[in-house]
Amino acid sequence: MAKRSVNSSKDAFAKLEGLGKGMINEINSGETPTFSASLRSKGNVFYDESVGYIRLGDKMEERRFVNVGQARKFMQTVAIANKCKKFLSEGAHTSIRGLFYQLKFTLGEDLDEELFSEQSESNPLVEDLEVSLELKREDLNLNTDRKGVVAGPLVLKDKFGGDETEIDCTKQGRSGWMIPSDVDNGMDFVSVDADYVLVVEKDAMWQRLNEDKFWRKENCILITPKGQSSRGCRRLIKRLANKKLPVYVFTDCDAWGWYIYWAIKTGSMNLAYLANDIATPEARFVGVTMQDIKDYDFLGSLTIRAKDVDIKRAEEMLGYEWISRHKEWVDELKTVLSTKKKIEQDALQGPRLSFVGEYLREKISKKKFLP
Amino acid sequence: MAKRSVNSSKDAFAKLEGLGKGMINEINSGETPTFSASLRSKGNVFYDESVGYIRLGDKMEERRFVNVGQARKFMQTVAIANKCKKFLSEGAHTSIRGLFYQLKFTLGEDLDEELFSEQSESNPLVEDLEVSLELKREDLNLNTDRKGVVAGPLVLKDKFGGDETEIDCTKQGRSGWMIPSDVDNGMDFVSVDADYVLVVEKDAMWQRLNEDKFWRKENCILITPKGQSSRGCRRLIKRLANKKLPVYVFTDCDAWGWYIYWAIKTGSMNLAYLANDIATPEARFVGVTMQDIKDYDFLGSLTIRAKDVDIKRAEEMLGYEWISRHKEWVDELKTVLSTKKKIEQDALQGPRLSFVGEYLREKISKKKFLP
Repeated sequence: MAKRSVNSSKDAFAKLEGLGKGMINEINSGETPTFSASLRSKGNVFYDESVGYIRLGDKMEERRFVNVGQARKFMQTVAIANKCKKFLSEGAHTSIRGLFYQLKFTLGEDLDEELFSEQSESNPLVEDLEVSLELKREDLNLNTDRKGVVAGPLVLKDKFGGDETEIDCTKQGRSGWMIPSDVDNGMDFVSVDADYVLVVEKDAMWQRLNEDKFWRKENCILITPKGQSSRGCRRLIKRLANKKLPVYVFTDCDAWGWYIYWAIKTGSMNLAYLANDIATPEARFVGVTMQDIKDYDFLGSLTIRAKDVDIKRAEEMLGYEWISRHKEWVDELKTVLSTKKKIEQDALQGPRLSFVGEYLREKISKKKFLP
Repeated sequence: MAKRSVNSSKDAFAKLEGLGKGMINEINSGETPTFSASLRSKGNVFYDESVGYIRLGDKMEERRFVNVGQARKFMQTVAIANKCKKFLSEGAHTSIRGLFYQLKFTLGEDLDEELFSEQSESNPLVEDLEVSLELKREDLNLNTDRKGVVAGPLVLKDKFGGDETEIDCTKQGRSGWMIPSDVDNGMDFVSVDADYVLVVEKDAMWQRLNEDKFWRKENCILITPKGQSSRGCRRLIKRLANKKLPVYVFTDCDAWGWYIYWAIKTGSMNLAYLANDIATPEARFVGVTMQDIKDYDFLGSLTIRAKDVDIKRAEEMLGYEWISRHKEWVDELKTVLSTKKKIEQDALQGPRLSFVGEYLREKISKKKFLP
């Protein structure tokens, strides 16, 4: 799989045009128009040790206009490509829900048959386009759900809707700067003067550290994905890692939280087609770990019972080769399964509200990380 | 019920101290320490037409230290009040989860018996304190879940964690300013130069309008609660309404969306104790309505089937006197029940991405509101 280009709304238009022109050429030379993309089914998804993330293999799928079973999907894909080209030329963004209603509206006028009846039809075709054109949907002016917040020594320039705004993430008060869907197009790093990036699972913990100005004292960039990270949040972390900043992840001590770390580090199976853009294999895990119960006495009395989903997720994670190759993680996961306990990162506020910062400072300075 | 004071972290400390001193006085004069608060059970919650929101009635509940059935709760309440006093004197915030771990940690050291085993024990006691002291938990340095975004001609001064930051909501680029948990303490309005407030249910729609600079063209403050509104978001809307700005709410055309409007307008039953702070009875509904299908031809083909939850919620809403007293709303709800259809606000992007702005402009300029 070729490296996908980024920061490329500019190129996206040309790529869409190329797709259409290619099809016209095929028709003109008496060939069947075809559309091909990497296969995204489970059999074509694997962990690639050489790059350190989960990516798509080389299997391709081809859609042919003259195939009765594929003609509808083919037409739908072309209709979506056409809409995205329009959004790009208008310089306007929408969601995949907005795209769906545009498709339903326009085609309802021109065709007897409804080309799209459910959004579940258009969503996978958007992914097809992303994979085929080697672009993110964000480059096609399609917004994804945004989630996550950042504070710290990072200044960005946001060119958007005709305005140009400088965003200084040291001047965002109690709120922080909300991470948008697209952190590439029209979004430049003006300065990144930090020593590392700290990713904190929970917003409540992020607010605690933000209030204590942890990012200023430690000269770090403080991010919370607010649970599982959005595409935009993973992409921002990746862009910061590309600036040679170490990335440390801090989650609950349970398989659910740890999986948030692994999704940032190696990507995830359903976003394998984007891994090159959003996986950060260099990320390291700073806590919370089962080992911490031995190192911090008070945590013993603040453990809680692991939920069924935590146990199930822990069992699954032991089956992932990219996790089970690390003895430290096998030990951690097996401890969860044998003790059926978990520790929330919030528990680090037990002794005093500021303790969570002391804990992080100690572990980071002593490089007590898991791989 | 007395009007609760706001912007009162400063007063909160004195109130907590007063609570403790009152108890000591009771003990010293040979009386039983008592703790009293408005009853929050269903029988004491009602819609008050004179104020236009759902509030608590006059029934009180009293907790007595010497009552065997109440002693544990009494001690727990005192422990929580004590912790909050500490947070206020330290000038540090945490979540109710952080509070729970502090309680678990400290009391675990001093007592043989565990005073708190589950957070479900401490949460309702925090509400007791809010009601009894006529304060919001935000005034006790307890953060609530934050959600929602704002852009437009609003400038705030955020005094937080030793910093003072000016937040200009016209300079927030694609992201907007994230509405925090507490929009009162240390949060001053520097200027509010808008003609009205527009509250948009969905973040995707908010982003669409933000990109088109709807707030600049219409000189309005553009807010999305991102679905059901958080306490902080409702409180911000209320503060803006107190500045005499009209508030218009724009949601999906289904009972789920409409209920988001009603929660902003009249408050909700489980937050009846906060209604005076967070309900905005002056709010008006701008759309989407079933009537719109008649006024905008294209919407007919873009309706979708109402879900079971929409139908159930519509039936419930017809039973609420504060809604069913409005003939317009009864008609709307009955149309949902008879047609079993709904319209998403996203559907207004059907004809063109910018149509949603045209729709709002027309309805607002012609004052086509529902009460």
